[in-house]
Amino acid sequence: MQSLDYKFAGLGTDNAPGQEARQRIDNIDDLLVGEPLIGKAVDFSHGDVDAFQPAPLSFDAFAAGVRLGGRRAYTEYRGDAAIRDVLAERLADFTGAAVSGGEGLIITPGTQGALFLALASTVGTGDKVAIVEPDYFANRKLVRFLDGEIVPVTMNYLGETDMAGLDLSHLERAFADGVRVFVFSNPNNPTGVVYGPAEIAAIAALATRYGVTVIVDQLYARQQFDNVAYTHLRAQDADPEKVITIMGPSKTESLSGYRLGVAFGASSIVSRMEKLQAIVSLRAGGYSQSVLETWFAEPIGWLAERIALHQAIRDELYALFGKIEGVRTRLPQAGSYLFPQLPKLSVSGGDFVRILRHQASVIVTPGTEFGPQFDDSIRLNFSQDHRAAAQAVDRVALLVERYRL
Amino acid sequence: MQSLDYKFAGLGTDNAPGQEARQRIDNIDDLLVGEPLIGKAVDFSHGDVDAFQPAPLSFDAFAAGVRLGGRRAYTEYRGDAAIRDVLAERLADFTGAAVSGGEGLIITPGTQGALFLALASTVGTGDKVAIVEPDYFANRKLVRFLDGEIVPVTMNYLGETDMAGLDLSHLERAFADGVRVFVFSNPNNPTGVVYGPAEIAAIAALATRYGVTVIVDQLYARQQFDNVAYTHLRAQDADPEKVITIMGPSKTESLSGYRLGVAFGASSIVSRMEKLQAIVSLRAGGYSQSVLETWFAEPIGWLAERIALHQAIRDELYALFGKIEGVRTRLPQAGSYLFPQLPKLSVSGGDFVRILRHQASVIVTPGTEFGPQFDDSIRLNFSQDHRAAAQAVDRVALLVERYRL
Repeated sequence: MQSLDYKFAGLGTDNAPGQEARQRIDNIDDLLVGEPLIGKAVDFSHGDVDAFQPAPLSFDAFAAGVRLGGRRAYTEYRGDAAIRDVLAERLADFTGAAVSGGEGLIITPGTQGALFLALASTVGTGDKVAIVEPDYFANRKLVRFLDGEIVPVTMNYLGETDMAGLDLSHLERAFADGVRVFVFSNPNNPTGVVYGPAEIAAIAALATRYGVTVIVDQLYARQQFDNVAYTHLRAQDADPEKVITIMGPSKTESLSGYRLGVAFGASSIVSRMEKLQAIVSLRAGGYSQSVLETWFAEPIGWLAERIALHQAIRDELYALFGKIEGVRTRLPQAGSYLFPQLPKLSVSGGDFVRILRHQASVIVTPGTEFGPQFDDSIRLNFSQDHRAAAQAVDRVALLVERYRL
Repeated sequence: MQSLDYKFAGLGTDNAPGQEARQRIDNIDDLLVGEPLIGKAVDFSHGDVDAFQPAPLSFDAFAAGVRLGGRRAYTEYRGDAAIRDVLAERLADFTGAAVSGGEGLIITPGTQGALFLALASTVGTGDKVAIVEPDYFANRKLVRFLDGEIVPVTMNYLGETDMAGLDLSHLERAFADGVRVFVFSNPNNPTGVVYGPAEIAAIAALATRYGVTVIVDQLYARQQFDNVAYTHLRAQDADPEKVITIMGPSKTESLSGYRLGVAFGASSIVSRMEKLQAIVSLRAGGYSQSVLETWFAEPIGWLAERIALHQAIRDELYALFGKIEGVRTRLPQAGSYLFPQLPKLSVSGGDFVRILRHQASVIVTPGTEFGPQFDDSIRLNFSQDHRAAAQAVDRVALLVERYRL
């Protein structure tokens, strides 16, 4: 058990998307070298839903939800039963294993809501939780808030391999040492790597052997590049009551403004998640739930086109970073994140992020959000206007040279 | 610290609004006497937003938010800055004390979200929290989930007085005994009583004397009847950094489907609430936030008419319950809740609630949700179709006679 002061000290949000207005700017002038670089501002901390607009018919579906009135405004806490049934079928198709709309699926306010509910339903005081480094920043913050203990697991994502690079022996040591819950994102946030079939099979086998509950955040799983071999953990040979999968339409589908996510799998965990949702936010917005009727039911070709457009941006930005001496980046296999490791600079990684904002009108997420050792890396969400994004990375390159040690 | 099993055992939701589909119906047939009563089904567990439709222009405001695109989809976690400023002004007018849109207000997914965030930001393991009995059920569940300790405080709401009936000496004993946080609803949920000016002044004075943080849920504060003297605690002489006020447009304004609430007051608590919101649900739905632009800005006369219509329903239902021998009810002074205490029955209060549903198509909330001692009471949200509600209470009266001891 930790004091509230300690818990909240661990919940910094100043570097999070949308929070730039609240960042400290106290000593920034002491850091700056040279003149600002002119160019269109790009906020790589999240996708640009003006460049890639919400999936078709989403607003119409919302409007239809409003017209349904009270029965859509006041759904079960776990979400409207009919929508859950529809989603269960589509998600079973997508993931390759059955989903129970009645007992094994909950609609949440965004995948953030799903992550919170899933972890709060499985992590008690002192429980050990294995977390990959690097991985999504909220995972560590949530475990700390829940008085759990973080057990980091190394991922060598820059290795020359077709695997994500998870250190499986490290993972097994963690499980053997008493880890109760393993939470990870696939594709990985921030690197965009996809876990290989053998890695997912190994995770399933280890989880089964050690009785570990696994929470898989598959938020970006639909946006796959180059026919990558994507493997759904929930379709592997593991105890289905020990696996929760999380997805949502906030990224590829640009529906973040509707705050929608789903968690599906273990019915006992879903049941707890619903009880907790009842006192945390009641339910995902009732009318918004209607938007899920359009999910996995977009017009033919829509997803393929969106993926192709993102792949083109990915390729250009990856090439641009590749030209900067000393930068190391893995080519993302899915999703919209790029996580370049920068060469040694004369300023800290955190300060370089602030410099990028002030001198280049470029907002990125500092690597330390994804693990304390990633001060030399930055995360970019490349779901942006293609041209503006490329020009922004040109400016990043110029500033890397300016501040290179 | 409690085990997760214990925590979740305390989070039952089967009697909550919208959850009837999940209620047990195992031994119901053994309980039933006589034939079902025919009539239009009424769900008194929450307001009927088809009978009282969402406040004007709410959908148009949502649509405008969608048109704003990315900057409305991705607001600060505490909500869009411009909307916060507008609300701060209106809420200062309404409550009679300044509100800082920049530092002292957060937009949340419903007032449920605000309650969770406020309590989770102030209640640590073992902290004592004073809770009125009866009061909103989620308060007790939240404190239990947060490993706090509930200290009940008696309210004699059935007393012949123009006060709510809070036992102030009981409250002071609780404060003196180490209570850190006091959470209460005003108007009170479930009874509809409004705390008198002297009661609010006394609460403010006691909180100041004992350094207690006060969270006031004023969800129904706009819907006042009979020119009741409504007093805002935050405008009293108490440390403003120790008071959080919660409101939202889900009830009187029928906007629950948009999931919106606000908490305002103590900037240090709001700051914590934002950090927590960042890992719980990120933010209130971005487009939904636009709907708040219409709040406290409804057409002239709209609120007065809505209040008059509710007052008419209140008066009729109150009179109908008054005709049932042995029923005791306080006339609600604000809001849409009625909390009649029933005479002795041959079945438990919980079973009578199930019987009402099965034999009379009437859904009410069992009194035990508001405190363990209220097994003889039921809560009705009378924001319903007037005629259907009156006929439903007629059926309740018939079943009271049928099951009277």
